[in-house]
Amino acid sequence: MNIVVAQSGGPTCAINASLLGVFRHATKYEEIDKVYGSVNGIEGLILDNLVELREIIRDDDDVELIRQTPSTVLGSCRYKLPDAAKDPKVYETIVNTMKKYGISAFFYIGGNDSMDTVMKLDRYFKANGLPFSAMGIPKTIDNDLPETDHTPGFGSAAKYVATTMQEIIRDSSVYAVPSVTIVEIMGRDTGWLTASSAILRVNGEPAPHLIYLPEKTFSIEQFLHDVREAQKTYHAVIVAVSEGIELDWNEIGEEFQSGKTDNFGHKYLAGVGKALEKLVSREIGCKVRSVELNVMQRCSSHLSSKRDIAEAERIGGAAVKAAMDGISGEVMVFKRISSRPYNVRIEHVDIAKVANRVKYFPTEWITESNNDVTEEAIEYCLPLIQGEQNFRYKNGLPQHYILPQALPHKWNEE
Amino acid sequence: MNIVVAQSGGPTCAINASLLGVFRHATKYEEIDKVYGSVNGIEGLILDNLVELREIIRDDDDVELIRQTPSTVLGSCRYKLPDAAKDPKVYETIVNTMKKYGISAFFYIGGNDSMDTVMKLDRYFKANGLPFSAMGIPKTIDNDLPETDHTPGFGSAAKYVATTMQEIIRDSSVYAVPSVTIVEIMGRDTGWLTASSAILRVNGEPAPHLIYLPEKTFSIEQFLHDVREAQKTYHAVIVAVSEGIELDWNEIGEEFQSGKTDNFGHKYLAGVGKALEKLVSREIGCKVRSVELNVMQRCSSHLSSKRDIAEAERIGGAAVKAAMDGISGEVMVFKRISSRPYNVRIEHVDIAKVANRVKYFPTEWITESNNDVTEEAIEYCLPLIQGEQNFRYKNGLPQHYILPQALPHKWNEE
Repeated sequence: MNIVVAQSGGPTCAINASLLGVFRHATKYEEIDKVYGSVNGIEGLILDNLVELREIIRDDDDVELIRQTPSTVLGSCRYKLPDAAKDPKVYETIVNTMKKYGISAFFYIGGNDSMDTVMKLDRYFKANGLPFSAMGIPKTIDNDLPETDHTPGFGSAAKYVATTMQEIIRDSSVYAVPSVTIVEIMGRDTGWLTASSAILRVNGEPAPHLIYLPEKTFSIEQFLHDVREAQKTYHAVIVAVSEGIELDWNEIGEEFQSGKTDNFGHKYLAGVGKALEKLVSREIGCKVRSVELNVMQRCSSHLSSKRDIAEAERIGGAAVKAAMDGISGEVMVFKRISSRPYNVRIEHVDIAKVANRVKYFPTEWITESNNDVTEEAIEYCLPLIQGEQNFRYKNGLPQHYILPQALPHKWNEE
Repeated sequence: MNIVVAQSGGPTCAINASLLGVFRHATKYEEIDKVYGSVNGIEGLILDNLVELREIIRDDDDVELIRQTPSTVLGSCRYKLPDAAKDPKVYETIVNTMKKYGISAFFYIGGNDSMDTVMKLDRYFKANGLPFSAMGIPKTIDNDLPETDHTPGFGSAAKYVATTMQEIIRDSSVYAVPSVTIVEIMGRDTGWLTASSAILRVNGEPAPHLIYLPEKTFSIEQFLHDVREAQKTYHAVIVAVSEGIELDWNEIGEEFQSGKTDNFGHKYLAGVGKALEKLVSREIGCKVRSVELNVMQRCSSHLSSKRDIAEAERIGGAAVKAAMDGISGEVMVFKRISSRPYNVRIEHVDIAKVANRVKYFPTEWITESNNDVTEEAIEYCLPLIQGEQNFRYKNGLPQHYILPQALPHKWNEE
């Protein structure tokens, strides 16, 4: 039998490690002959665009390089499967590709949306009596998947955010004049990654002095009050803010709204960091700067957490084991047994509990003042950022794995 | 005798290494008793705010931590000395502080503006028959100081820019849809740091596909043409652009201009990256993203170049030697003897040749198409990013040196 693995959704530093986990664990089974990679997520199965992984992961050198390469070596997609009852054609196409290549198990490394794909495929396989397995392998820097203690990719992103925040603190504190620095961190719906910046406290940093998450209502008035209070103690105030907080843009100023509105009714020229910078400048009038950590949060593999990468590989392998045990329609999860010493168990749960669902940052881990997180949040995050990868450099630059030949992007050619 | 050292201007990853260079080299001279640090640059000498470095650099542990801590442990300033002929009062204050502490040599680690301070002090000392020395130690990520082959801090910034650019390339290339990613890099007047992104070519990356520097006139029309041409070959086009290019903001769109104008006649809500993103979105209509590398370029010490840090320390020490040899009013410089093998010599030149002057990126290193740099630029930058520091982590985070007790910021209290 053969199996296929695909990567989907936004990039992380750990998604290639999970690919390695599937590939390398599969070699332990005599029954598994070939491991295919589907190019650009599920699109590869739709467009008959597969590569045999053994051809692109040729030796230990390739394994090492892929482990330290961010993003997805097989490409990604944002494709959402239609309802099978209404539109079965794409399902038939996928099944035909699987049959053509003798594939009986599909592994999808992705977030909430990708788990929807796994669920729909599993239900289709079962409804049509097909002896195929579809398994989910979690992945997202947002850490917002239910049922799992955390998601692979989050630990590395948190390590990047905390490290960079610490460097920004040093950078912001050099001048004697009062200043405010606002750091905008990813997380459209949840505050996990923004909260992780508080890890710095374990190394004696009082900053970030203020932390705002989308789980709580954001008040401009309260924010300005908080900043003014913090300025009484700190000449350089550092604010961590999630990109997902909801701002009253009318209060920020018209100049931040473009003339046109998008499908969601609004379109703005800048993110919340820039908007709050403007606000502080206007209302408080001190030196102020905003920094958007942007895609670096999800692709700075040179700073990845050794534990995160190791766990990502382990959970990929565990998915293969589960499928070989006859499981389908489930997603692999971490269950934390203890934080000190850190100990997790890998299990699998019904994918319906995860697909399209969101795990919010616990509001009981947000302080009553709504502008900081509690010790529990730090205790939770700290084990996930531990360890540094033994990184391979070439010519003074981290070495990345680049496919021996560019994979064809058939999607475009249609 | 005693000496004093101060740090000035924008932070870098190497400025603390130069401080160590001064401090540690001074211990080799029996004549030198105490090494003082002036808090917040020259302001410390004006406000009698000095610390004895032996009290804050207590052991090898402190030395190691300071070497890996970005920014300035002594704080910084943007203070410009007035003309001594018109306003001698501040000079008298500085001299009084120097006499009070038995200081006969002043070392200033900084960029073009800081060298102006060194020059003015040296001229004042000489004009008033004071047996003091004032020496400049170069520092700036912009690499725009004349007379020196390069400036400490630039190599680490270039290593950060190239490494991060490479990770952004991986991140941007995962989807099958055509996209443009615009990376905005520091350098208000010169393109050195933006040009350094081309180093990636030595590791086989074709990107960045387009590079725009402030040394050449930027044409919106040509830019759009360049992007469209690049899209014929690359589905994910990567653009490196200096923050310093001059844009015709009227062509970008009114919504990018705020209602008010500042002292320079203009005030915009966003940098050039955001503006070009908007332009590509409107004129080409494909998926587009802009990324501003922001202060991370100058403070990401976890990625600093080992050679840069070592050279910064060396040139700091060499400044002490020069002063002890009776030199004053000069700035330390690197003279490159060869690139392969890399070899530089440290010399000193009249500070008048450096103060307030700018070294531009050589236009002969820019391709005729004005959208890329030549092999010479890569050959020049490559040696400067070599080597990784043996970094000390604590709790999964780079460990920083934080002053045993916060230094008083007297400037504010006036």
